Formats: sequence, C-alpha cells, structure tokens
Amino acid sequence: MSKEDTLDEYLLIQKYFSNIGSAFLAEHNVEISVGDDAAVITPKDNIQYIHSVDTSIENIHFLSSMAPEDIAYRSCSVALSDLAACGANPEWYSLAITLPSPDGIWLKRFSSGLREFSDEFKIPLVGGDTTKGSLSITVQVMGSVKKGEAILRSGAKPDQGIFVSGLIGEAYLSLKILQNLKEENSNCSAYLRPKAQISLGRALVGIATSAIDISDGLLQDIELVCKSSHVGAKIYLDRVPTSTNDKSVKVINSGDDYQICFTAPMDKSMEINQVSEKLEIPITQIGQTTKSEKLILLDELEKEMEIGSGFKHF
Amino acid sequence: MSKEDTLDEYLLIQKYFSNIGSAFLAEHNVEISVGDDAAVITPKDNIQYIHSVDTSIENIHFLSSMAPEDIAYRSCSVALSDLAACGANPEWYSLAITLPSPDGIWLKRFSSGLREFSDEFKIPLVGGDTTKGSLSITVQVMGSVKKGEAILRSGAKPDQGIFVSGLIGEAYLSLKILQNLKEENSNCSAYLRPKAQISLGRALVGIATSAIDISDGLLQDIELVCKSSHVGAKIYLDRVPTSTNDKSVKVINSGDDYQICFTAPMDKSMEINQVSEKLEIPITQIGQTTKSEKLILLDELEKEMEIGSGFKHF
Repeated sequence: MSKEDTLDEYLLIQKYFSNIGSAFLAEHNVEISVGDDAAVITPKDNIQYIHSVDTSIENIHFLSSMAPEDIAYRSCSVALSDLAACGANPEWYSLAITLPSPDGIWLKRFSSGLREFSDEFKIPLVGGDTTKGSLSITVQVMGSVKKGEAILRSGAKPDQGIFVSGLIGEAYLSLKILQNLKEENSNCSAYLRPKAQISLGRALVGIATSAIDISDGLLQDIELVCKSSHVGAKIYLDRVPTSTNDKSVKVINSGDDYQICFTAPMDKSMEINQVSEKLEIPITQIGQTTKSEKLILLDELEKEMEIGSGFKHF
Repeated sequence: MSKEDTLDEYLLIQKYFSNIGSAFLAEHNVEISVGDDAAVITPKDNIQYIHSVDTSIENIHFLSSMAPEDIAYRSCSVALSDLAACGANPEWYSLAITLPSPDGIWLKRFSSGLREFSDEFKIPLVGGDTTKGSLSITVQVMGSVKKGEAILRSGAKPDQGIFVSGLIGEAYLSLKILQNLKEENSNCSAYLRPKAQISLGRALVGIATSAIDISDGLLQDIELVCKSSHVGAKIYLDRVPTSTNDKSVKVINSGDDYQICFTAPMDKSMEINQVSEKLEIPITQIGQTTKSEKLILLDELEKEMEIGSGFKHF
C-alpha cells in the first residue's frame, strides 16, 4: 500500500486543496476557508448573491481519458457558466469530489487545473468535501450582482431578438474527435476547456431581458427560457453560427457549448454590436420571441422543422 | 419504458424538488430559487455567512436499505451539523443528487424527507442539480452569524475544559442493529436521523472557544481541533458518556454521532450547565486542553492508552 492510499482526508485537503486562489480571499471577504468546519464570508454591501451548483460525472460530463487538469477546469467552468448567464461577478466556489482512490499524481494535476481556474476568474476555493466512490465532481459557485441586476430566464417578452454568442456545436465536434482519438493535433478546447462567458454576461446587464447558458442543447435551453418567460420562439436554423457546413439539428442542439443565448429588445442591436466588438466575441441573432408559447425551428425556406431533443439527463 | 424513465430534468425538478421549504424563502431573503439558472439571495445586514458542503455516498455514508425519507434527511442533517458546530443559524441549502435512474416512488419519498428537514430547520431548498450515476447526494448549506460570532476550530487555549453533548457511540450501535437486521423494534434514529445540534451551537456562542461536530470519530475530531488551535488534549475514557457499558475506543471513536465537542474556559461551567438544562441536552466534560500539542487518552487508572483511528475517508 503506497503512502497515498493511507492518506487521510485532513492531509489530502492540506496537500491538494489548500491555498487555491487564496490570493483572492480578501477581495471577496472570505475570512475562513478550506480547513475549518465551514467557510466564513462577510457579504459585501448592496449586492445580491447568485448561487449555482453542478455535478460532473465521469464518462457522462467528461471523458475518463481527459487530463486531470482539464477535468478540474471543465467541472468548475460549467458550474460558473450558470453565473455568466445571470450577468454575475464570480465571488468564490467550493468543491465536493468523490474519488475511487486518492492517487497523488492525479490529485496534484487536478489541483493544478483548479488553480488555473481560480487564477483566470480571480476567485478562491473556500471549502469542500472528499469522499470515496465513482469519480464525480460537484462544484458550487457563488457570484454577485448589484441589487436587481441579475439577468433571469423569465424576463423575455414577445417580439424580442434571440441571440447567441460564439459558435454552436463546437463542443460536439471536439467530443467526436476526442472519442475517436483521431486528428490528434486538433484543438478540442471547446470540450476540454469550455469558457464561462463571465465578461459577456456582465456586459449584457441592462441589455439582455433573459439569458441562459447553452449546456443541454440550444433548442432545449431556449425552450426553458420560453417556459419561464411565457413566450414562444422562432429560430432560423441557417442563421445559427457554426464552424461546419452541417447545420443539422443534431449539431446545433448537441449542448455543452456554454455559450450564452439571450433575448433583447430589437432596438438594442447597436449596443449588442458594441459588446461583441469590445469583447471580440461574435454575437448572432438567430430568431425572435413570439406570443405563441411554442418553439418553432425554420429551415432555409422558412418551413417548420421537426425538433429533436438535446442532452437527456436520464 | 415507464413515464418516469423518460422524465427530463426540468420535469423531475418541477415534480420533486420545487417548493421545498418555500414558506421560508422570504425570511431568508431568497428571491429566485429552484428553476432558474441560479438562486438569487440578498444578504442580511451585519452578518457573516457560513458555508459548508458534504457528500453522502450509498453504502458508505448511508445504507441502501434505508428509507428514501431517511436518506434525504440524513444527507442534509450531516451537512447542517457543520454549521451547528460554528454556532450558525441555518439560512438555506442546495442539493446535487446523482441517481442511477429516476424512480418516481423513491423520488417522492426522498422529496418528503427533504420537506421534513426544511420544516424542522425552517430553511428553503434554493437550487441543485440532478445527474445520472451511482447514488450520491451532495448538500451545500448556508448559515449566518452576527459578525465575529462564529465558533471556529482554532480558538481553543490550553487548560480549557473539553465537553461533548449527548451520548457518544449511539450511531455506531444503531448502525450495528441496522446492518444485522435484528432487534427490529430498536430505535435506530441516532444513525437514521442524526440531529444537527443547531440550538446547542447557537447557545454556545460566547461560551465555547472552539467546536467541532463529531462526524469522523470523537478522538479524530478532537485531534483536528488540537491541530487548528495548536493545543494538546487529555481525554478521560471513562468520562465519555455512552449508553453502553462498553466504553471501548472502538465505540467512542466510531464517528457519525453529530454531537458537538467543544472547548470552554473552566469558569464557564455554570453557564454550560444552564445551556444543558434549558435545551435538555446532556453536556459532559471529558477532559481538558494542554500545552503539549499531543492528544492523550487515559483509562480509569489515568494510564495512557493506545488510540486507534476514527472514520477513514479512503
């Protein structure tokens, strides 16, 4: 039995989960973090906290073959993506990890992925839990907005534009390459390192009336906005921005893109263009909201199409 | 395939995880809860938030044979127990559940256990995530204290009393009964429904200099306080309160009790007695802190004993 096998939780936390993003503890008012029973945080004035949680399971939300650094980064990023869609500033996060066994080399690399995430978004890891079982990572993220600023799913009104950031289907295309282990030199970062669109979310405060991050599939996620906002939507398939000529429902509704889909009044086009240019993130109008409470997908001849389903959780 | 098998996450959340503890949303300033990307919470004035997270894994932290109501209650309670040890008031919680498949009857009963937990501690469920995999439940709890009130692990000083609440080893004895499926009429609530000692934790603010909840094992948990506070401890085995005559290290260090172990100056005895009487919770002094930074267990002849280990996470 190696030393790592007998490592107790206390030492494991000390060794691999301490001082991650600790340079950012003070600016987020975190007084006690990893190591005590609990973290102690003093709320800032005049803010609202935004809380979200996401679990990533091996071979469902990430591949076993992925580098531990990528598994760590991806698990945190997909959780933070929900805050991006709310227009929130990241404040801190905690992590509950379930592992089959504590492998020191794996943990060191995983820890290094957490550090990259913390450094990129300037937030500390404030606590967590380590347990034994099938590999699974649950990340809680806390963000903040000024009171009333949060962009919700429920704010869309009929006859507003529906926009998406970036390119859709990139994660799906990356995943296919990773699964087939071909084209080794391909850039699969869309799947390995999805980027939480925090800057875009912040810039959309005051512009977007509703927003959602594209995790389960573009159409399925738009449907959630429609349900929450009691509106319908018309989506023009050929306007959905992709890097491939295959604009099939399968590609655009594959999920995992973590781009932001949002609605905004038509008269906000200029502001949206300015945001897009400033952040160097393409933003494309792909449709508009309707009064009907129905989601309609139109082909290039504006003929209604069959809609498949996005990511099924079960 | 039954209807439940095809239940998507949206419906599953609507059906089993909505409106749990929603009567308590307003008093904890939660404006948006289950259903949006994220929960929106306005912090109260002049408080500090206390955050903790705990994962419960099937057949490690609870038995497969347990009722879904008990699995739900136990998973939440063990997470809340960390806040009790900090002297915090519960504010809200979120839940990430991984399930092999969505079984409607099981989920309904699980949901009912969550409701019991919410009602007992008057806190709402504000969000979560549902994923497919081996049964595992991660609960994040948020509590609050007035600024500076939090009882930490690091506050113990040498020559203070070490106290425990309740009886130690009860969960271990309950678990043995449950595992052997004998003595069916026995009360196994110490294991099935461990009680987060929130009222006790609150009452100890201003009295206790450090505290920890007994999750991993009495001696192991005292050792964590010693490490954080840079003190040692002398524990008198025969003073540890148990319901059995078997005061072996195995029984008292078996963990899972979720009682509170705390340190306090010797001159606080009267106040501690008053807390004990008022809350009708036995509180027993089992030893004292020392300057040595060493944990020593003494038998009835005050002879130093061998210390085994408590709960091993791996």
